[in-house]
Amino acid sequence: MKKHTFVREPIVLDVNHMMSDIVGFQYGIDAGEVDAMADAAAAAQAAVAKNRGTGWLGWMELPYNQDEIVAKIEKVAQSVREQYDAFVVLGIGGSALGPIAVQQALNHQRWNDLPKEKRGGPKFYVEDNVDPERMASLLDVIDVTRTCFNIITKSGATAETMSQYLIISELLKKAVGEGWQRHIIATTDHEKGNLIKLAWEEGFETFYIPDGVGGRFSELTPVGLLPAAVCGVDIRAMLEGAAAMDTRLQSGDVWQNPALLEACLQYIAMEERHMNVQVVMPYADSLKYMADWFCQLWAESLGKNVTRKGMAVNCGQTPTKALGVTDQHSQLQLYTEGPYDKVITFLKVGTFRDEVTIADGCEQFADVHFLSGKTLNQLIDAELRGTEYALYSAGRMSQTITLTEVNAYTLGQLIYFFEIVTAYAGELLDVDAFNQPGVESSKLASYAVLGNTSEKYQRKAAEMKGRPEPLKKYTL
Amino acid sequence: MKKHTFVREPIVLDVNHMMSDIVGFQYGIDAGEVDAMADAAAAAQAAVAKNRGTGWLGWMELPYNQDEIVAKIEKVAQSVREQYDAFVVLGIGGSALGPIAVQQALNHQRWNDLPKEKRGGPKFYVEDNVDPERMASLLDVIDVTRTCFNIITKSGATAETMSQYLIISELLKKAVGEGWQRHIIATTDHEKGNLIKLAWEEGFETFYIPDGVGGRFSELTPVGLLPAAVCGVDIRAMLEGAAAMDTRLQSGDVWQNPALLEACLQYIAMEERHMNVQVVMPYADSLKYMADWFCQLWAESLGKNVTRKGMAVNCGQTPTKALGVTDQHSQLQLYTEGPYDKVITFLKVGTFRDEVTIADGCEQFADVHFLSGKTLNQLIDAELRGTEYALYSAGRMSQTITLTEVNAYTLGQLIYFFEIVTAYAGELLDVDAFNQPGVESSKLASYAVLGNTSEKYQRKAAEMKGRPEPLKKYTL
Repeated sequence: MKKHTFVREPIVLDVNHMMSDIVGFQYGIDAGEVDAMADAAAAAQAAVAKNRGTGWLGWMELPYNQDEIVAKIEKVAQSVREQYDAFVVLGIGGSALGPIAVQQALNHQRWNDLPKEKRGGPKFYVEDNVDPERMASLLDVIDVTRTCFNIITKSGATAETMSQYLIISELLKKAVGEGWQRHIIATTDHEKGNLIKLAWEEGFETFYIPDGVGGRFSELTPVGLLPAAVCGVDIRAMLEGAAAMDTRLQSGDVWQNPALLEACLQYIAMEERHMNVQVVMPYADSLKYMADWFCQLWAESLGKNVTRKGMAVNCGQTPTKALGVTDQHSQLQLYTEGPYDKVITFLKVGTFRDEVTIADGCEQFADVHFLSGKTLNQLIDAELRGTEYALYSAGRMSQTITLTEVNAYTLGQLIYFFEIVTAYAGELLDVDAFNQPGVESSKLASYAVLGNTSEKYQRKAAEMKGRPEPLKKYTL
Repeated sequence: MKKHTFVREPIVLDVNHMMSDIVGFQYGIDAGEVDAMADAAAAAQAAVAKNRGTGWLGWMELPYNQDEIVAKIEKVAQSVREQYDAFVVLGIGGSALGPIAVQQALNHQRWNDLPKEKRGGPKFYVEDNVDPERMASLLDVIDVTRTCFNIITKSGATAETMSQYLIISELLKKAVGEGWQRHIIATTDHEKGNLIKLAWEEGFETFYIPDGVGGRFSELTPVGLLPAAVCGVDIRAMLEGAAAMDTRLQSGDVWQNPALLEACLQYIAMEERHMNVQVVMPYADSLKYMADWFCQLWAESLGKNVTRKGMAVNCGQTPTKALGVTDQHSQLQLYTEGPYDKVITFLKVGTFRDEVTIADGCEQFADVHFLSGKTLNQLIDAELRGTEYALYSAGRMSQTITLTEVNAYTLGQLIYFFEIVTAYAGELLDVDAFNQPGVESSKLASYAVLGNTSEKYQRKAAEMKGRPEPLKKYTL
């Protein structure tokens, strides 16, 4: 594994533009409102701290308890790098969003376009859908005999992933014959579910998703670490960054613990200000899929219809992604003039890993020539500051998380930070942030549509017959 | 240009799951509410019809008035296909989202990954950001001497695009020398702005964005048609589809005109039900960037702080994208259990262009083996129906737009449909759907940050000094 010599600096949360001191009293949050939440915040922090490592908070210990696993991941990753031209993740949701985000953040932005010698690792694909055109197109561009497939599903029951497994294992058996099993790495529960049993039967290389780690909190397990290592990421630095963030989040004082402050501010935004939308807007292409990863974490954890005490609610905030500067030309008009219903979270990069100077020219056009000699780095930074200012002028709330540099260490911090914010926010809202009961109904209904004759699906099929018939006038 | 022999069938809007007849009275819309809007709807349709082709409704005539332009586009596209290995669009917002969406919808999903002979056209890149890492990574994978750059900006003043122009033209001058201008095609206004003047000076091949067509309504001009044609799309069929949709949208009767019905339903959802979020959820990877294209159209057109009569409002609905089935594993939990604040718009494909069968296997696991012999096509369809049902069960509104097949003809329909819906919605909300004044402040502030000494930027710089200083306690 190559070792990176990057800056190991803390990421910074700046919430000035959330506060009434800066954006004014109409929507800005008063420091006194945060103070009024001090007890609730301290209790949230204490509850999370008390339960760390147990129940569904198993993921909190991931920065510390994976020495042996990391060594094995590095060994297997090295062997994959040497043997294969392509590495394909078959997984969906929490088994896909993290691997995609980390690859985009830490590797060359045209990884698959690079010649093999420049990559130093296989081409990388994450197949998180069952669209037949997409699957067919994948098979057009990979040679399965030169490809390693990483099947990721904790339950081993994910219909999309197991369908992909059936398709791919059949192709491998035909194309590779004996030894086809060496093309498959299973990442799953250590004892429960179909995939681990299959792995035992077939002898697949296997990694485990530990107990107490749900899909959306699994990026720092082999789910995320193996794909990252295969593409040359320094996964030890990712875990180091996560550990460093953990040490910063030990205080129960809302003004000392950035994750606690963030959870309180979003709680106030959602519950007191009806800001039911949070826009995550990285000003860096490298971080654009981190926004998608966060969108799952935030939506699925907090979008709940019942509190832990069984009280009916419909809480949660809709996370949505925008990319700076690109979406200034798509969404900013709405953000500055539309309803006061959203908070903008900027992800900012201190120093980019490349610098591109805008060449001299266009002397005849003052506004264009003015850009000559400046760098794209200065331009993207100025546009972020311009957008923050425009939102401020319109009385809109924003906040900025700055990564001095995008690297494995700062990304590890960011992942852990968002996970803890989510856990705290779950406490404040008093919801179970770790389940997803609302997904089950769709799954049952899908299997019912497909004609599964098991009793639970047939019960759903019968229930579905109770839906009123569509009316013709509503179909144009 | 290759001619496609695809089905030319109308796309279908099904709003049953928006209506109280199906989803119940708590949130569902009653047919009587739509009837109550009949006059307003008729007036909206009449206003749009009356002004078609004039002012900012110039785009309505695009399906009919481009015979000569299309012939020229096809000729130039053919020459690009023969001469170049890569085709790079330099543009942002309305100059990028359409070209990206159409390429993804109509061409192979791993276009750049295919060998050249299978593509039959150049690699395709759309550079709609000024991230320095992204620009550097592009230059790592293209050979500028074998690349054609299409610079798209109507005003010729777009800072991002003109910066890219300066960088690329400098590289071309160095690498190509004499004749570097042949690598550039300008798409811009026919007489106003910097880029047309540059094109005259340098002799670039040039296409025009007609009067009366704003950026987000420009996909059916050379902005979208040239990139599509370069990648082999049948652009005449796109325009044919748009024309066919236009003929379907002539009625002032809300129950006869699907775009009018759609505009009314979204108006009621926004204004009466406080559904301030619209999720566009294609169940097809091919349509995922059509969702982004729609998100600009809807956000920038309707997100306004003043009516046409000058009354202060803060209207608009936040469009956000989800991908089926992928985001069932990310967002569906929130959609079924979170706040009643959103409408889900499914984009459904009747028949995919590939069929993939799930191979036999896993006899030992009933729920996995059950999938054997079914196709991914059946699975994705069942999951859409399962999700629609789950939303229905939870009292949530959804609607479905079905494309019998994704092809140039149906895509042309879809584009025109959404554009007209947006125009009607602007009428109903009584806002100017064709301007974007809210973007200006950010632009001025960015140039002020960059130190531009022109008076208007200096005035902004002075204004920016009035912002309160950040407080240390808000930075952790």
